[in-house]
Formats: sequence, C-alpha cells, structure tokens
Amino acid sequence: MTVFRNPTPTVDIIIEMIDQPHRPILLIERKNPPPGWALPGGFVDYGETVEAAAIREAREEVSLEVELIEQFHVYSDPNRDERQHTLSIVFMAIAKGTPRAADDAKKVGFFELRELPKVLCFDHQQILQDYLRYRHYGIRPR
Amino acid sequence: MTVFRNPTPTVDIIIEMIDQPHRPILLIERKNPPPGWALPGGFVDYGETVEAAAIREAREEVSLEVELIEQFHVYSDPNRDERQHTLSIVFMAIAKGTPRAADDAKKVGFFELRELPKVLCFDHQQILQDYLRYRHYGIRPR
Repeated sequence: MTVFRNPTPTVDIIIEMIDQPHRPILLIERKNPPPGWALPGGFVDYGETVEAAAIREAREEVSLEVELIEQFHVYSDPNRDERQHTLSIVFMAIAKGTPRAADDAKKVGFFELRELPKVLCFDHQQILQDYLRYRHYGIRPR
Repeated sequence: MTVFRNPTPTVDIIIEMIDQPHRPILLIERKNPPPGWALPGGFVDYGETVEAAAIREAREEVSLEVELIEQFHVYSDPNRDERQHTLSIVFMAIAKGTPRAADDAKKVGFFELRELPKVLCFDHQQILQDYLRYRHYGIRPR
C-alpha cells in the first residue's frame, strides 16, 4: 500500500478589533511551542470548510465571534513551521468585544499594524507585512 | 495515540490559452473516476508549495509550462469530492502552445467561458462561474 503524504491544512485569522481606536490587530501569545506572538489559528478538521475552521478557531483561542471579510492568501512554504509541513489559508476578519485567551493561547494583545511585536512565530511576520501592503496599496501577495 | 484527520489539499488551475483567439480556458476530460470535464489539478505533495504543485500538475496533465498569475480562491466544501474531503487552492494562470493529455487526463479541450461544457466534475462549474464573475466585475467569491 502506498501512503501519500500531503501538507496539513490550517487557517490563520487577521482579526481587526473594530470597536477599538485605530482598529488594532488581535494577536495571541502561544502557550505551546513554538513560544511567542502569533495570529490566532489552527488545523482544519476533516468535514469542515476553511471558513468554519477560522470561525471555530477564533472562538476557541480568543473567545470571539468573528465576521470573516475575505480570504487573504494561502502560505505554504515547507519551512513555515519547523514541526511539519503545514499550509495556511489566511482570512481577514473583524470582531468586537473583549477577547479571552484560551486553548493554545495564554495571552491576547491588541497591536496596531505599525507597532507589531518585533518577532512573530512561523511566517506571521511575512503575512502581516503582506497584509499591511494590501491595506495601503490594495496589492495582494504574489 | 490520537490520529487527527484533515482535508487533503489539492490545487486546480484555470489556464487561459493566450495564443488562441478569445483566450479560451483549457479543460481536461478525466481518465479516472469521476469521468467528465474538469480543470487540470491534483494533490499537493508534502514539502511542496501550492505554487509548485500547480506548475507541476499542469506539466503532468496537459504538458504545458504555465505562468501563474494569482491565487484565485480556496474551495473546501466537504462534499465537493465524493471520494474524500479535499480542499482546492485554485490558481489563475496563462499558457501558450499545444497541450497534450497525460496522466489523469485522456483528452484536452479549449472552451470559451460562455461556451463551457454543461456538466463539469466536482465543484468546477461553481469555480468557473465565480471566475466569470471575477473577470467581468472584479468581484471575488465570498
């Protein structure tokens, strides 16, 4: 029997807090390795759309009901996560209210795009740089 | 040991033949079940980016070197393929030359967007309807 191996699909969510001044982005400080700040997100379950996965992960990690705005981009570099090859479908979303860290998140923080943490986990620095470019110039990553 | 199951990532490619009048789309007639016309595409290999997978699949199935233009959209309805839950990252691409069917394709065909086959495999009818809307109005799927 031949077993085919594929990258594992995940979602990450760029959540803008629309009831906060300057609509900051919500990041989590990870409880599990690798440590550091990251976008909320996680694995897509079998039988679940990527949209449902994004809404579920936001609920589980930061206790918020997000409204998805659009798919932003898919990141799939084999080295983006050193543990295994994952690909991430990144969503843009908005939310209101008070997030609470749970599940894989030990802390949450609001960050303006111009004041992001210096170091982010995985390729999330790249994702947010691409996002900043998209917000300023309407240019999607290539 | 808990085994987590995830949808399997695939790519599909909307290839516009830029050296043909009216830039038709290239479709394949599938050799393996399910039969019918479909976009070229296939599974993303472990260690491979989705971009590399799209270029490789176009090479394998229709013997063309495509130039990827952009990621279009991710389709992940659990019922999109009745065999198993797959998600597809759909690319827009262009190519020139003479395609040859190979691998999973038994035949290739050029189709203008207004003259697509009445029935397509998987959710490819939906994908091409969304694509038509995007080409006409610049509106991405939601």
